[in-house]
Amino acid sequence: MRLLRPSWSGLVRGRHHQHHRRFLQTTTSRGSNGEREEQQHSKWSSPGSRSEQLLYAAFWAGGLTLGYHWLTDRNNRVLLEGQKVPSEEELEATARRWHVTIRKELPNYRAEQVEQHNCAEKRIWVTYGLGVYDVTDFADNHPGGDKILMAAGSAIDPFWAIYQQHNTLEVLELLEGFRIGNLEGQVVTNADEELGSPWSQEPQRHALLKPASKRPFNAEPPIGLLADQFYTPNDLFYVRNHLPVPVIDPEDYELEIEGGAKEKTLTLEGIKALPKHSVTAAIMCGGNRRSEMTKVKAVKGLSWGAGAVGNAKWSGARLCDVLREQGVQPDESKHVIFEGADLDPTSHPYGASIPLAKALDPRGDVILAYEMNDEPLSRDHGFPIRVIVPGTVGARNVKWLTRIVVADKESDSHWQQNDYKGFSPSTDWDTVDFSKSDAIQAMPVTSAICTPQPGARVKVDDDEGHITVRGYAWSGGGRKIVRVDLTNDEGVSWHVAELEQEEIPDGRHYGWSLWTARLPVTEAQRKAGDVEIWAKAVDSAYNVQPEKFEHIWNLRGVLANAYHKVKVKIV
Amino acid sequence: MRLLRPSWSGLVRGRHHQHHRRFLQTTTSRGSNGEREEQQHSKWSSPGSRSEQLLYAAFWAGGLTLGYHWLTDRNNRVLLEGQKVPSEEELEATARRWHVTIRKELPNYRAEQVEQHNCAEKRIWVTYGLGVYDVTDFADNHPGGDKILMAAGSAIDPFWAIYQQHNTLEVLELLEGFRIGNLEGQVVTNADEELGSPWSQEPQRHALLKPASKRPFNAEPPIGLLADQFYTPNDLFYVRNHLPVPVIDPEDYELEIEGGAKEKTLTLEGIKALPKHSVTAAIMCGGNRRSEMTKVKAVKGLSWGAGAVGNAKWSGARLCDVLREQGVQPDESKHVIFEGADLDPTSHPYGASIPLAKALDPRGDVILAYEMNDEPLSRDHGFPIRVIVPGTVGARNVKWLTRIVVADKESDSHWQQNDYKGFSPSTDWDTVDFSKSDAIQAMPVTSAICTPQPGARVKVDDDEGHITVRGYAWSGGGRKIVRVDLTNDEGVSWHVAELEQEEIPDGRHYGWSLWTARLPVTEAQRKAGDVEIWAKAVDSAYNVQPEKFEHIWNLRGVLANAYHKVKVKIV
Repeated sequence: MRLLRPSWSGLVRGRHHQHHRRFLQTTTSRGSNGEREEQQHSKWSSPGSRSEQLLYAAFWAGGLTLGYHWLTDRNNRVLLEGQKVPSEEELEATARRWHVTIRKELPNYRAEQVEQHNCAEKRIWVTYGLGVYDVTDFADNHPGGDKILMAAGSAIDPFWAIYQQHNTLEVLELLEGFRIGNLEGQVVTNADEELGSPWSQEPQRHALLKPASKRPFNAEPPIGLLADQFYTPNDLFYVRNHLPVPVIDPEDYELEIEGGAKEKTLTLEGIKALPKHSVTAAIMCGGNRRSEMTKVKAVKGLSWGAGAVGNAKWSGARLCDVLREQGVQPDESKHVIFEGADLDPTSHPYGASIPLAKALDPRGDVILAYEMNDEPLSRDHGFPIRVIVPGTVGARNVKWLTRIVVADKESDSHWQQNDYKGFSPSTDWDTVDFSKSDAIQAMPVTSAICTPQPGARVKVDDDEGHITVRGYAWSGGGRKIVRVDLTNDEGVSWHVAELEQEEIPDGRHYGWSLWTARLPVTEAQRKAGDVEIWAKAVDSAYNVQPEKFEHIWNLRGVLANAYHKVKVKIV
Repeated sequence: MRLLRPSWSGLVRGRHHQHHRRFLQTTTSRGSNGEREEQQHSKWSSPGSRSEQLLYAAFWAGGLTLGYHWLTDRNNRVLLEGQKVPSEEELEATARRWHVTIRKELPNYRAEQVEQHNCAEKRIWVTYGLGVYDVTDFADNHPGGDKILMAAGSAIDPFWAIYQQHNTLEVLELLEGFRIGNLEGQVVTNADEELGSPWSQEPQRHALLKPASKRPFNAEPPIGLLADQFYTPNDLFYVRNHLPVPVIDPEDYELEIEGGAKEKTLTLEGIKALPKHSVTAAIMCGGNRRSEMTKVKAVKGLSWGAGAVGNAKWSGARLCDVLREQGVQPDESKHVIFEGADLDPTSHPYGASIPLAKALDPRGDVILAYEMNDEPLSRDHGFPIRVIVPGTVGARNVKWLTRIVVADKESDSHWQQNDYKGFSPSTDWDTVDFSKSDAIQAMPVTSAICTPQPGARVKVDDDEGHITVRGYAWSGGGRKIVRVDLTNDEGVSWHVAELEQEEIPDGRHYGWSLWTARLPVTEAQRKAGDVEIWAKAVDSAYNVQPEKFEHIWNLRGVLANAYHKVKVKIV
């Protein structure tokens, strides 16, 4: 199979990929041209560097930056008394430019010099943008273990593009503290337009999609539109990419299947020739509504609103049919691993797994989907084949599916092992042990108010004094929503919403439910003007949402399913 | 089949049972002896009537009753100023004796006279104990609809024994307001010892079981013992009977099965001859922990503590094997109805149903159980056959199973249609519509602290200042418990408990998890002496318990799964 994949080669300087897999070695030939890689790397940067250099110079002079003086001396910042203290966000925005800014008081190093320092004995140097850092003394304490050594003598940029927990003020400050110099020969250009950039072939997106990050592209639609249609329009469906979008020629597409008595390769035509099965399923990101949880205490991850969910009719071949045809037998100890065509900087594909029992269950409705709402999948949603695992966290619904393996263990991918897991609120980055927690599969019950939106001026719309509230509710594992309760007086009185949902038996009810409620507004509330609306859903196992985020807080900000609370103004 | 069933005939005076079913007509021949029924009825009463009559006389004289004077004149009570206002419980205890007390200012009626008043045209009279009541003007407003007409001209006692929502002060006061006389010829004896009483053949119970009601027998073990053993001892396993315990001769036992291509009758030996399957499953009453919910606002139902749950190894034949052998095909619109040998006063059996999909799923582990922890079922737990529906509310695990029907609809029993359903906290008995809510099947995640118990004096047990807390956690639908969090500072810090659970794959994890946590006690807490411990569990779908009861309150007091909170004294 030949896939035209965006290459990370421009970002990974001359590294040998020790973890290559057979499948990948045949498809990543672009990674073998060392000279070209070097050249591409030398051109890497982020946009806007000229103004940033100026800003940076001002900053290191201890002077005015973004209009603020520094009061503390943490990381060389001085804030004068009487000046406004910058917000965490402003500090972070500034910190995000440090690595693309030359520190003139420090020496310059060539890439070849940095490469020498690739183990503790010779000191461990890494680069990030224009910065050179000696992280030897930190390596032992790295929360991610010895993964940091993968970047020894090299650039950490591509790794941090994946492991987004680094993208915080705390980590950026820590790193800048290790800065020992500037990387020579780094020319600041815009990598967007470069042919070799892994991001050069990203698809066009709908202008209304609101990015949580641009590279990889992650974006949600305006929540105000979300409850308008039972089937979310494809181009407004939230996008969660962990890596650059691969370019796949459908003529060349192949899906490898390992497991059972024999191995097999299916073409796109072969998959389409199998019996076609459709299922309505909402897909939800594990981090949906993270932006609410992080208000309690900062979490690491993309700042999703309540729009990292969408509902679609998916069509394709049933995975249970394919696996049975392969001779795969039920075995509750086994898992099914999915790999995508999207590659991380070490040429590992995106990967995830689900229990074999879910894959083999005809009521599990797992399908190799080629259609979304009766249209071919778009590139952002996994063209040409995405596995749809209804009722299961989005991360297991692997896009650009190229390989299926029936295995004794879960996927060993970062995203299965060290991400998308829940923890106790008291677990922090010092104490977390990802191996002790279960990978998220079925998602818990949740709901959100889509209209009115926070801060909206809402008109009481009849003589009796009601306002109309609309939103969505969903639960994982095929559990139907049985009730959505609304209150606008902090739970003194609750009002049951009208549900719009498919007539599908419980246990297999994978689509979301839209709901509408008419809430009475008292004279006192009218006068006060402010009303806070709460929504909570109940699923068919009578599980309910927890009331607030404090006691379900977790360091990755996943599973954020507390009551959805929206403050509006009554006019 | 001949079953020796306890008969309600002593309580239902000469009524014709219009809703007889074929199966039941053949087995309730004792109900045909009108004369004997009359005689038995005339002897019915509750114990202790002599002292109650005295108490009653004092009460109606407006004098001292239970040491209190009445201030209000609600139902003829007078409370003098300056006297202690009686509690709701005390008022209710008094009200419970009204119907066994003669009101000398009212006329006496014979049973034959009461019988004449059996429709609105002739006025609707009913009796309750010694009381005669004219409920004509109330019948139209009866929350239970025209069910009240079933007792017209007759005794309501046996109906109220089932529909326990009547057993409240409010309802008793309402009834007493309709009193028009006393029933002549009522002799006060103890029905326990009477051969004709439906309660005369109840089994012996363990002395430690704490009754929530004696007739029908409902009892839970002391919660302090509950977490001592992974498998709850059979004689300490909570008992939830809706009706008198039937007496079944195993030689005569037959199980009728309707559905699929053919009908079939299985004997006990026939069931035992099928492949034997064992499953560890916790069974939990839908009303477990109701006594906590009712503190927020009164609910109707037995006042269960946290002990209406137990965990056992159940063995028997797989229902999916039996149904498949019958030729039953998967059909997600269908249900499986179970009927027990226990009869209500109208000779209807206890009944419940589950979705056919659950019954046919090999991973559903539904079994026709004849063993509990490797011993034959006891009479209280369904001898000789009980259906075990793992992961599903106790009410569907029908005991004394005599009939299985594959049907297009759910069971039409009271317990499927008008009980064991969840509602919004704002739904009250005036607005409730049972047809609008889903019958509880899979139960939500819950947990409870078993030791220490509320008010216990707990010793800090090491130099570092820890206390040990133990309890259980469970979730329905085969969802494994993945974590139990404990706090003793209202959620400022959480501590993850060690779990004791079976190694069973998720989705089929029907047993409970026991847990142990060591909680640090601060110096300040030691000095204050009082500590409140909270427990919350998380299941494999990452559903969590809601924090408090206020927002999950429902009028029947079911699904009471908020955090379990226990106040103890540190010594």
